[in-house]
Amino acid sequence: MFSFAITARAGRARTGVFETPHGPVQTPLFMPVGTLGSVKGISPQELRDIGSQVVLGNTYHLLLRPGPERVRALGGLHGFAAYAGPWLTDSGGFQVMSLGHMRRISEEGVVFQSHINGDLIELTPEKSVATQEALGADVIMAFDECPPYPAAREYLKESIERTLRWLERCLGAKTRPDQALFAIAQGGVDLELRRVSAEATVPFDTPGFAIGGLAVGEPKEGMYPAVGLSTRLLPEHKPRYLMGVGHPEDLVASVALGVDMFDCVYPTRTGRFGYALLPEGRLNLKLTRHLDDPKPIDPECDCYACRHFSRAYLAHLVRADEMLGLRMLSLHNLRYLHRLMEQARAAIREGRYGDFARDFARRRFGGEV
Amino acid sequence: MFSFAITARAGRARTGVFETPHGPVQTPLFMPVGTLGSVKGISPQELRDIGSQVVLGNTYHLLLRPGPERVRALGGLHGFAAYAGPWLTDSGGFQVMSLGHMRRISEEGVVFQSHINGDLIELTPEKSVATQEALGADVIMAFDECPPYPAAREYLKESIERTLRWLERCLGAKTRPDQALFAIAQGGVDLELRRVSAEATVPFDTPGFAIGGLAVGEPKEGMYPAVGLSTRLLPEHKPRYLMGVGHPEDLVASVALGVDMFDCVYPTRTGRFGYALLPEGRLNLKLTRHLDDPKPIDPECDCYACRHFSRAYLAHLVRADEMLGLRMLSLHNLRYLHRLMEQARAAIREGRYGDFARDFARRRFGGEV
Ligand SMILES: [Zn+2]
Ligand SMILES: [Zn+2]
Repeated sequence: MFSFAITARAGRARTGVFETPHGPVQTPLFMPVGTLGSVKGISPQELRDIGSQVVLGNTYHLLLRPGPERVRALGGLHGFAAYAGPWLTDSGGFQVMSLGHMRRISEEGVVFQSHINGDLIELTPEKSVATQEALGADVIMAFDECPPYPAAREYLKESIERTLRWLERCLGAKTRPDQALFAIAQGGVDLELRRVSAEATVPFDTPGFAIGGLAVGEPKEGMYPAVGLSTRLLPEHKPRYLMGVGHPEDLVASVALGVDMFDCVYPTRTGRFGYALLPEGRLNLKLTRHLDDPKPIDPECDCYACRHFSRAYLAHLVRADEMLGLRMLSLHNLRYLHRLMEQARAAIREGRYGDFARDFARRRFGGEV
Repeated sequence: MFSFAITARAGRARTGVFETPHGPVQTPLFMPVGTLGSVKGISPQELRDIGSQVVLGNTYHLLLRPGPERVRALGGLHGFAAYAGPWLTDSGGFQVMSLGHMRRISEEGVVFQSHINGDLIELTPEKSVATQEALGADVIMAFDECPPYPAAREYLKESIERTLRWLERCLGAKTRPDQALFAIAQGGVDLELRRVSAEATVPFDTPGFAIGGLAVGEPKEGMYPAVGLSTRLLPEHKPRYLMGVGHPEDLVASVALGVDMFDCVYPTRTGRFGYALLPEGRLNLKLTRHLDDPKPIDPECDCYACRHFSRAYLAHLVRADEMLGLRMLSLHNLRYLHRLMEQARAAIREGRYGDFARDFARRRFGGEV
């Protein structure tokens, strides 16, 4: 049900098809984040139109509202949110531990305070899996401990061991055969610990593996080696998911290292802040000079915003905080990352991923936007 | 260029076609408000899909930003906002006088304070027309004085006379033959003053006439007689536009009195507040009970929201203040008013507008939503 077929390789980069109960997925791919069951402002039809394949839901947020039983009763995320393609849910651990809501962490799990009403709520490996089973995504994630950056080595080591014990509990609690649970390898930017974590995680033989604990504030010089080592150690014939990474240059570099899946709030969040992603870099539409520019954001882009609106109009909407502007920039930015991954897949198929990555870097770092 | 052909009548209600430089318009119709050049959260394609015909832009808001010259340089509102159908702009007077920004009113015009940066700005009949010419709408409105409710009779009388002098100045300042300037009859809910104003306004023979100064807080018992008298006095063969009215029951009643055009922020604003318009009344999606309801907002509605989403999902989005929810409720509410006017047009064509209005009232006031 969750087979992964690699169809072409270029160096360590690979492209393939990951089968899910809600259809096949072309890798490498970027997954938009639908925190509360909607990708902010974007409809399911628009997600299809721009080439989204998998949508990510946040277990932490959906646990608090509307609650997993409500989602289950309405057909899981596929029915509830009316996006009938594949979904992935995170375990809730990252939000609980990173957003400052955590109150206590123990071997049993994590106690956190709801940011909605202040209630104390416990999240354990078993509860995370039960919640994710109610939400019904195609891919669910192991409940792991995600240490902040920087973290002491001793803490990282303990955390890796706890994450492994929690993984065992997650797999023991899992009941639905139509969901794939991905294990998560940790270790921060410590290459020795990443090796320890990856080597101990691989034997669980889950249908896919995630690289966690990165994109939490560490320098890029630390991230890339950690990614490169992890992809060497994780199984060749399982999809590899680098969590929380969404900057275009990180996608291009990580695909070269053998990563297959990405998610991040970056394209939608930076859109809501008034930025548009371009091959050359990030365009700040709050700058006055765009108010008179009749050009589209990107004349090569096929998204609705680029086909219909000028930079001038979008800059006006962003300045006035108009919903249509924020929505259109999110749409464009998602389309940009989806197209980038489409181009990456084509380049791998044609055995020219190295050229693709060099062209990307040349255009991007060639000068000002 | 602005011919108006009445194609059928039922009592005082009429249906017809109003020609504009950007295409014909079926009357009676409801016009969505695109304050800053966008109908909050809704794309031009969606406006087409739900049956919008004319979009209204606010001169006050567009004067402050992005400024009329920017809009002109980008092809007027049609090009700037990428809605290629007909536009209508108000004169700016209502916003200046009603939103508390007015600082001084004189025979020359109005001085107001920008709500953006506090600058003092003068708006005169000439400046309103020049601004509206730069914005380029198909229909532009005379710069009138719109007194609050209640207002002293003596003030209303003076205001009517000033509005007539301002109308003369507007017509003198107007240069573009491809724009129709509509005069506005005033008089509040004072029937004698409404007669005075209408009779003095009609001889200006503008391509259409508006009924102004209503929907400013007066009781409905005051509004309907004022509308009914105005439509009797305004020319039979010119479109009649009742400004700022958008409650469904007011549309149905006013069409019966011979009104052809309406505009109001009501459907989009009430949508952003979490309300959905139904034939039975207004559905408050913030109520807890909707969180478990798998039904669409309205099973008879053909809008995107009703075809794809449950009340449960939309109630969840509204509660979480998610952009998609606000956008979908606005879209549904606009579609509801457009469909109501489509049904009204059909009923007039078929000579059964009285039955249509009675059925509307029976369904609406038959019980709880
Ligand atoms: Zn685009
Ligand atoms: Zn609807």
